[in-house]
Formats: sequence, C-alpha cells, structure tokens
Amino acid sequence: MSKKLISVIMGSQSDLEVVKEAIDILKKFKVGFEAKVLSAHRSPKELAKYVEEAGGRGIKVFIAAAGGSAALAGVIASHTALPVIGIPIETKNLKGLDSLLSTVQMPAGIPVACMSIGKSGAKNAAIFALQILGISDKKIKARLGKYKKEMCLAIKKIKIKV
Amino acid sequence: MSKKLISVIMGSQSDLEVVKEAIDILKKFKVGFEAKVLSAHRSPKELAKYVEEAGGRGIKVFIAAAGGSAALAGVIASHTALPVIGIPIETKNLKGLDSLLSTVQMPAGIPVACMSIGKSGAKNAAIFALQILGISDKKIKARLGKYKKEMCLAIKKIKIKV
Amino acid sequence: MSKKLISVIMGSQSDLEVVKEAIDILKKFKVGFEAKVLSAHRSPKELAKYVEEAGGRGIKVFIAAAGGSAALAGVIASHTALPVIGIPIETKNLKGLDSLLSTVQMPAGIPVACMSIGKSGAKNAAIFALQILGISDKKIKARLGKYKKEMCLAIKKIKIKV
Amino acid sequence: MSKKLISVIMGSQSDLEVVKEAIDILKKFKVGFEAKVLSAHRSPKELAKYVEEAGGRGIKVFIAAAGGSAALAGVIASHTALPVIGIPIETKNLKGLDSLLSTVQMPAGIPVACMSIGKSGAKNAAIFALQILGISDKKIKARLGKYKKEMCLAIKKIKIKV
Amino acid sequence: MSKKLISVIMGSQSDLEVVKEAIDILKKFKVGFEAKVLSAHRSPKELAKYVEEAGGRGIKVFIAAAGGSAALAGVIASHTALPVIGIPIETKNLKGLDSLLSTVQMPAGIPVACMSIGKSGAKNAAIFALQILGISDKKIKARLGKYKKEMCLAIKKIKIKV
Amino acid sequence: MSKKLISVIMGSQSDLEVVKEAIDILKKFKVGFEAKVLSAHRSPKELAKYVEEAGGRGIKVFIAAAGGSAALAGVIASHTALPVIGIPIETKNLKGLDSLLSTVQMPAGIPVACMSIGKSGAKNAAIFALQILGISDKKIKARLGKYKKEMCLAIKKIKIKV
Amino acid sequence: MSKKLISVIMGSQSDLEVVKEAIDILKKFKVGFEAKVLSAHRSPKELAKYVEEAGGRGIKVFIAAAGGSAALAGVIASHTALPVIGIPIETKNLKGLDSLLSTVQMPAGIPVACMSIGKSGAKNAAIFALQILGISDKKIKARLGKYKKEMCLAIKKIKIKV
Amino acid sequence: MSKKLISVIMGSQSDLEVVKEAIDILKKFKVGFEAKVLSAHRSPKELAKYVEEAGGRGIKVFIAAAGGSAALAGVIASHTALPVIGIPIETKNLKGLDSLLSTVQMPAGIPVACMSIGKSGAKNAAIFALQILGISDKKIKARLGKYKKEMCLAIKKIKIKV
Repeated sequence: MSKKLISVIMGSQSDLEVVKEAIDILKKFKVGFEAKVLSAHRSPKELAKYVEEAGGRGIKVFIAAAGGSAALAGVIASHTALPVIGIPIETKNLKGLDSLLSTVQMPAGIPVACMSIGKSGAKNAAIFALQILGISDKKIKARLGKYKKEMCLAIKKIKIKV
Repeated sequence: MSKKLISVIMGSQSDLEVVKEAIDILKKFKVGFEAKVLSAHRSPKELAKYVEEAGGRGIKVFIAAAGGSAALAGVIASHTALPVIGIPIETKNLKGLDSLLSTVQMPAGIPVACMSIGKSGAKNAAIFALQILGISDKKIKARLGKYKKEMCLAIKKIKIKV
Repeated sequence: MSKKLISVIMGSQSDLEVVKEAIDILKKFKVGFEAKVLSAHRSPKELAKYVEEAGGRGIKVFIAAAGGSAALAGVIASHTALPVIGIPIETKNLKGLDSLLSTVQMPAGIPVACMSIGKSGAKNAAIFALQILGISDKKIKARLGKYKKEMCLAIKKIKIKV
Repeated sequence: MSKKLISVIMGSQSDLEVVKEAIDILKKFKVGFEAKVLSAHRSPKELAKYVEEAGGRGIKVFIAAAGGSAALAGVIASHTALPVIGIPIETKNLKGLDSLLSTVQMPAGIPVACMSIGKSGAKNAAIFALQILGISDKKIKARLGKYKKEMCLAIKKIKIKV
Repeated sequence: MSKKLISVIMGSQSDLEVVKEAIDILKKFKVGFEAKVLSAHRSPKELAKYVEEAGGRGIKVFIAAAGGSAALAGVIASHTALPVIGIPIETKNLKGLDSLLSTVQMPAGIPVACMSIGKSGAKNAAIFALQILGISDKKIKARLGKYKKEMCLAIKKIKIKV
Repeated sequence: MSKKLISVIMGSQSDLEVVKEAIDILKKFKVGFEAKVLSAHRSPKELAKYVEEAGGRGIKVFIAAAGGSAALAGVIASHTALPVIGIPIETKNLKGLDSLLSTVQMPAGIPVACMSIGKSGAKNAAIFALQILGISDKKIKARLGKYKKEMCLAIKKIKIKV
Repeated sequence: MSKKLISVIMGSQSDLEVVKEAIDILKKFKVGFEAKVLSAHRSPKELAKYVEEAGGRGIKVFIAAAGGSAALAGVIASHTALPVIGIPIETKNLKGLDSLLSTVQMPAGIPVACMSIGKSGAKNAAIFALQILGISDKKIKARLGKYKKEMCLAIKKIKIKV
Repeated sequence: MSKKLISVIMGSQSDLEVVKEAIDILKKFKVGFEAKVLSAHRSPKELAKYVEEAGGRGIKVFIAAAGGSAALAGVIASHTALPVIGIPIETKNLKGLDSLLSTVQMPAGIPVACMSIGKSGAKNAAIFALQILGISDKKIKARLGKYKKEMCLAIKKIKIKV
C-alpha cells in the first residue's frame, strides 16, 4: 500500500464494526491509511500527541468515529488545521441523535465535516476523504468518477417485478 | 475571599451571562473560586495544562459551561480525577438539546455531573459543588442546610390571590 | 466491607440490571454502600424517611436510578443537602429521553448530578461518587488515579488489524 | 363560593400566569377551589402534609402545574388516591417537552392525567376536574353540556371573508 | 359483573395487547365495563353514535387507546362531556411520540386525560377511571386505598443482594 | 369566481393568518373555493355534516389546517373518499412538531396529504390542490406550468453581491 | 392491466419491502402503474429524464419512497407539475424522523404530499393516488367508496372478548 | 481577487444573511469564490448545469446552504465528485432540525460534509473549504495555522471579572 495519507481514529474498539465500512473503501481505492483506537475522554494526551505529529508524517485528512457525547472529531480538530471528518456512531438509547449533535454542532472556527449516522456515514467519510485528496491527485479523482458511474449503472440495472 | 477551591470554566465569553448565576452563589457562600474562559476546541492545550495544574493549586471541583457540541466538561474530566460538573448552555437553534446531550452522554469511566440547561443549571452547579465540599467541611454543610430551609420558607410565604 | 458511605437507590427491582454496573465498581473499590428499592411514586414516605435518616448513619452520597417520569433523584434531593447522583434508566418507548429530561431538568436550588442513560451512566455514577469521596479520602483518590491510568493503557494496547 | 372541592397547586409562583386560565374557569363554574404554591423539590414535607390532609377537608380532585423536571403531579399522586390532573408548564429551553414527559410518563400504579402544555392545558385541567365532579353532580354536568354547546355555537358564527 | 360504568375503546384490534392491562385491572376491581374496537378514522359514524348513546346507558368514563395520529380520545371527547382518558399506543417508527403528542396536545375546551405510553399507561387508565368513580363510590375508593398500600408493601419486601 | 371546487377548512379562526397563503394562491389561479372554520373537537357534527354534503355540491378537494393534536384533516378524511390535504399549524410550545405528527401519521386506509408546517405548507396545499385538479383541467395545468417557470426565472434573476 | 397512470419510484431496492404495500393496492384496484428504482442522489440524470418524459406517456401521479436525507419526492416535484406523493421510509437510527422531515418540509412552490412513515404510508400513498384519479374517473371513485365501507364493516365485526 | 476555487450556493436569497459569514471569511483569506442562488427544488436544471460545468471552470469545492427539506447540498453532490459542504439553515418552526437531518443523513456513496446549523456552520463551511484547499496550497495552509493561533490568543486574553 502507498504512503499513509488518511488517519482513521475510533473512540472505542466496538466502533470498528462501523468504521470497517470506511476502511474497506480506502483499501478498494488503494489509498494509504492508518487506523487506531484513541479516545478524547480516556486517552486525551495520546490523542493530542498523535494528532499533532500526524501531519508531519504525511497525514492529510482525519476520519473520526465516536458515539454518545462524541467529542473525538472536535478534539482532533482542536489540535490540527487539517480537515477532520466525523462519523456519528449509533447509540443504544438515543439511536445516535446524541452522537450526531455532539459531532456536528461545532463552534465557529473549528469545523468538523459530519457524515450520516453509522455505516452509511462511515462509507461516506472514506469517499469524502478521497474527494479531498482528489483535488490534487488526478488518479483518485478519476477513480471517484468511475465509482460514481458504477453506482448509477447499478441502479439502472435493477428491475422491479410486480 | 478564602482559598480557591472551585474552578469555573466557560467555553466562550458569551456564556458568562449564564455562568454568573453560579458565581453569585459561590460569592454568597464565600467559598473561594476562580473563573476563566478556556475552550476545548479553540484553546485545547491551555485547557489541558490548566486542568492538570489546578489540583496542585488546591482546586477540588470543576464547573464547566459550554453550548452546542459541548465538549468542555468531558475534556476537563479527561484530564483530571476531580469531580467535574457540566452546565449545558442554551443554543439559538436547538435550544440546548445539543449542549445537554453532548454534556451528559459521557462514556463509561469518565463521568460528568450534568445540571439542567441554562441559568437554573448554573445555580445548581454552584450548589452541587458546595454539597461536594460540604461532605468534609461542616461550615459549608451547615450553610447549605440553612439555604434549603430558606427556600422552603420562601415558598410557604407565597399567597395566591384568586 | 468498610462503613457504608454511599446509598444506591433504584425505583424498581427491574432497574437492578443497570444499577449492577454501579455496584460492581463500588465493590471493586471496596467502598461501603447499601442498595435499596424505594420509589418516589409508590413508597414516598419510606423514601423520605430513609433519606432523612441516611445522613445520620454516615451516608455521604446518594445514587438514584429511575426511568420514565424519573422523579426519584429529585425527590431524594428534596429531602437532603447531600449530593445526589441520578442515573436515567432506558425506557421501552422513548428510549430514556423521558428519564433523562426528568432527571436532569431540576429547578434552581435542588441539584441532581445527572449521568448518561443506562449502564454507562450507572458506572459513571459510582465513579463520580468515588470522586466526591476522594476529595477528603486520599486512598480513594489514589485508586481513582490508578483506574484512570489503566483505562488509558487499555486503549493504548488495542491494535486495529485492517 | 361553595365548599372547596378542587385543589390547584403550582410548583412556582411564576406558574400562576398559566394556572390563572384554570382558576378563571373554576370561578366561572362557581365550583369551590383553593390555590397554593407548593414544590415537590423545595417544600416536599409541606406538600406531603397538605395532600394527605386535603381529602379530609373535602378536596376531591387535584390540579398540579409544574415545569422542567415536573415531579409535582406525580408526587401528589404518590400521597393520595384521589384523581390528580397535571399541567406541563412551558420551559424556556426545551419548550415544555421536558415538563410534558416528566408529567405524563408515570409508572404503572400511580396515574397522572396529563393535559396539553401551557394555557390550553390549564383550561382543560379545570374542565376535566369539572367533568370528574359532574359524574355525581348534576348541576355541574348540565353546565358542562351548556359550555360545550356554546363552544360549538361560537365556531358556527365565524365567517371567513376572503 | 356489575353495571357497565366504563367504556374501553381501542382504535384497532392490535391495540388489545396493550389495552388488556387496563381490562385486567377493571376485572380485578370488579367494576363493570365494556370493550370495543371503534376507529376515529375508519368507523367515525359508529364511533360518534356509540359515544353519544353511552352516557344514556350508564357509562361514566371513557378509556381510549390509539397509536400514530391518535385522534380517537379527542374525537370521543368531542362527542361527550364525560371524562375521557387516553392511552397512547407505541408505534413502530416513532416509538409512540406521535401517539403521545396527538393524544395530549388537545385544544382548550376539550380535555383528554393522557396517560403514559403503552402498558403502564393502560394500567393507569384503569386506575384513574376507578379514582374518578371512587369520588362518589366508597367501595371503589376503599379498594384503591388498599391497592396503593399493597404496592408500597411490595416495594418494602424487595431485598437487593449485592 | 367559478364553481367552488376546493374546500378550505381551518380548526380555529386564528389559523386564518396561515391559511390566507393558500387562499391567495387559489384566488390568483381563479379557481372557485370556500373557506370555513370547523373544528374536529369543538364542532364535530357540523364538520361531519359539512364534509358529507360537500362532494354533492361539487367540492373535489379538501384543504384542512389545524395545530396541536391536529385531528382535523384525518377526521375530514374519515368522512369522505375525496383527497384531503393537511396543513400543520405551528404551535407555541412544540413549534408544530405535534401538529405535524398528528396530521401525517395516519393509519393505513385513510390517507392525508401532509404539507410542510405553517405558511409554506399553506401555499403548497393550494398548489397541490391545483395539481390534483390539473389532471383533468388543462387550463389549470397550463397555469401551473407557467407558475413553475416563473419561480425558476425569479431565481435566475437574483444576483448576489459580495 | 390498463394504461399506466401512476409511477412508483423508490430510491433503493431495499425500499421495495415497504413499497410493495402500495403496489398491492394498485393491483387490487386494477389501475395501471409502473415501478422503478431511481435515486435522487445516485442517478439524478436518469431520474430527471424519466420524470420529464413520464407525463407525455400518460403518467398522472408520482409516488416516491425514500429514507434518510429523502430528497427523492422533492426532486421529482422539481421536475414536474404533476402531483407527487412521498413515502418516508423508516431508517435504522433515527426511525424515519429524518425521512419524514426531509420529505414533508418542502419549500413554498414545490409541494410534496407526505404520507405516514413506512408501510401504512405506502398503502395510503396508493389510496391517495387513486383518490386523485377518482376525481375524474367514476369507476375508481366508486371502488374507493366501496373500499371505505369494507374497512368500516371489518371494524364492526370485531368482537373483543374480555 | 484570485481565480474562483470555491462555489457558494444558497437555496434562497433569504439564506444570504447566514451565508455572508462564509463569504466574509473567504474574502478575508483572499481565496477566489463565486456566490449564487440556485434551488434544488425551484431551478433544478440550472443547478445541475451549473454544477456540471463548475469543475471545468476551476471550482474545487462547493458550499451549499439550505433550510427545511434541504436537498441542495445532496443534489449538488449527486452531480459532481468534488467535495460538497452543507450548511443547514435555521427554520422558523423546527429550528433547523429538519435542515440538519436533510443535509447530513446522506445515503452511502454520496457524501455531504455537514456543518453546524446557522452562522457558526457558515463560518465553518468556509474554513473547512480552505482546509481542503490547504492540503495542496501551502499559503492557505499557513494562513489557517495563523488563524487558529489567533483564535487561541483571543481566548487567552479574556479576563473574567467576578
């Protein structure tokens, strides 16, 4: 795999089931990435240190997945001026409404690009990270165009039998 | 004023209007405190450093007020094992539902004691901090008992004319 | 077990499944506690009597778990000036949003320290009670510091295989 | 005014603006009532004592108005087997959704008859109390029938000019 | 069974699972009742006719259970000045929030006494109907007092083993 | 004005401020209509009678506006097989969420075509009624096509100065 | 089957389980229709082209089913002046509240007739489409009248055994 | 001003008040942009055509602001593989919850980077667009770093007087 450009961070190991959707797309596109468990609440110093060093190692975009009081994406954004994409993880009780509001309602000055709740959001986080890279990487851009066409073709082929 | 035991942190200067309710109660009880603006998102390093040093200076309880994606109380709790009390600040759009869920839905291991939204919550944050201190400080405990009785008496005196 | 310092009250026997998370942590920390079923709605006099006497027997902190129109924590707080921590129990229909709002939206003067909904909240209620006791009990404080470090180490050890 | 049959309790003096709508209807129907401020959280003993004695003095129905963590109606219902009608008061932040859920989501065994939020709910609390009394009081029943017809006639008279 | 005093109406046969909780309590108290499926939306004329005649046959209180756009209780209340108690039935998607708001947010002049969502609400609808009848029926009142005491005793007997 | 084809019903005179948006569009399109205040809760018989007779007088489509426990559109739909369009009116407390859910969550078999909350919904109710009539009325269809083009042209003309 | 008058579009093949409820009713009424998968987000050009041509082929009404950020019905409405009926599909996390708000909250000028969430909404979408056609088709209108009577009769036959 | 790299689209002229916050930041950073009113619902063809051509003219990132059933950002994303940032505009009734869910809950394959509701979201949309461009533009990256430091310094300077 090529150089690591994307950092995928999840707040808890249990988030991997959702985050895997993002990882599978990054693998499919053959874009280098690294995936880690780091918590805004349980390992704040390690998180801060990791985020501050990531840019120097070539990371261009962060993807952060967390649930409940989902501070992860926002805390990453507080430590870097690189783009941060947030995936709100579904919660048992409030069904991810808490995760969504915690991720998306960022104060002025510190943006987080919030995706939809759960697996769709994880897939989209990967695609959005690729779209960002695609601005200066023609190969990724071309592959994204192809991906978009394939999605459309897949829709066209469906026949509803009634 | 006596030694500073309580640290009152707000995420933005505009939160002072609400936080003032907490401050007024701390003053009334003559318990030492300090009040600062520190943001989980805009000044994360200063916040971390401040929280880590506060215990050494004698701070026993944190009160944190923030709105929207209100990471402040949780981030403070990530840096200390002292009790952290959170005040969700009302927001223009979602009326503080976002602040409430961000403050209260903390993951296992890192508690935040969430109060009600806005000014009632600010008053209660101060009283709760005093209740914590009251466990080992008989004077504060006695003053709290008196405060409770006065509230009750105030209710008794109200006459509804119909 | 040492002297009983924490009182854990649940509104219904069915809440025990959630409250057990709090009890397990209190046992692990070897801090004395008692656990009871007492309802703000079905046994109000017994509840009032119990709360009023608890302080005299040495109880320092209350933990209260209830669901739906969750008046329990607030009613306990109405009868004592000791700190009261509330655990909103998930409900079948509204998923604990009702329990959360009933527990957290306390009026000025009578604070309840609301934790997150369900099992995470139960764990955090225990830890928060310990943090309160830790202010004047160095042993508890030291154990909490150790607990926090272990959580962080546990995160560090996780390797994501992709 | 005739013997006091209905007790109107509000959790705070500021609720009177809403509760007045109930009082005005009770006056109009010339049914005896008493109105008091008593708080489930700030004057719990006075509330319990008042509720327990009210039945002996001839009170047949309770109307209780409270906002936020609105425990009032439920706590009254915990102390009596007389019917309790709840009026959720609008709150500044959550617009009475908290008051509504706290009032209506009562556990099995302790019913509260919840009305709509705010002034409509206050009016309806009075009418519902009268409907209860009307079961065994033919005069009240007859007046309610007349009231219903007048409402209907008032609608019929409206002409929309377009 | 004695004379029919309570009418229990449900909007759909599938609501019976919930409504059964009300019926069981009415049976236990040996108070006469009748139970029917009648829909505000699918059989409006039959509903109107039934409600208008019910009072003449001796019905004193209506209990109405419906889900979704739950117009049933309100439509019954539009046709009678007898007390109407509403049970919001849980819905598959919105979990009964739609049923609750449709049932409780009645306009001024036409009260519905809304109970909690689902089975607890069904139980409470029956108890509340009995509380209404208990105002002029000493036997029912005495049985309700006994029921309340038994609930309290049941709580007292619970021992939590930890 | 031509023959009355559309019936516009509002639950309360205060809804006219919103409903006027629908009326203005119907006037502009010169399609005959009648507007009345009729309440599902306060004048149920008059409403039922009116709806049952309306078809015979040539009414083809109903528009119904109501707030809170907004049973109006559903009750109209219970009395006719003509299309019924619902406008949820904003409410003071719950901001029309109650009106929306009451209007839209109709049971299978009795559809209501729910528009957006408030004035936009009122405008759209009129346009949708016209779209229904336009299926068999070429003049209305042509005017709707022109209306759509004008909306688009109005957008095109806007210049943003930055 | 007769000429195709109704177009049933779903945003994803997985929506068919819900949409089938609409299709079954259209089949039962023997009204010609076509069913397709077309996505506002994944095949926008095909959707636009299809909608623009559908009117010329005789389609009179569109039914559109989509979940989450449910743009489908609104985008169809942007391309046609024919009536568009929207079915909000339940979502895993937010239970269709997102689909409902996305479908119903259309801006002034571009109406979508929103049905209830899920299968009830799908059935009602078909019946509402038939009601629209029934305005100028006496056979359909007569069949709808019969359908309404059968629903009512089905209710009447239900006996509740208690 | 330099070459236009960012396209700012709003669904209605009234959104400009909010969108201006984004425009002011783009001006401050002296990054070329264009701002237009184009509606997913009222001018769909113009929108599609504009988006498809924008990439060819050098646009790298889209910012889209819309309220209610906010299809704009998603529809733009359906026509391009460039990154699309969404700003949910506050609505009168549902306070932007509808706009937020419509913007953020995108299906897998078509990401939209959702910002917070209203003016904070508009500011953050601009900063996030700059962060995207900053990946391959060192000047922008440097300016963003400076901007972040200034925010932090501004916080540090605030003194709370109590």
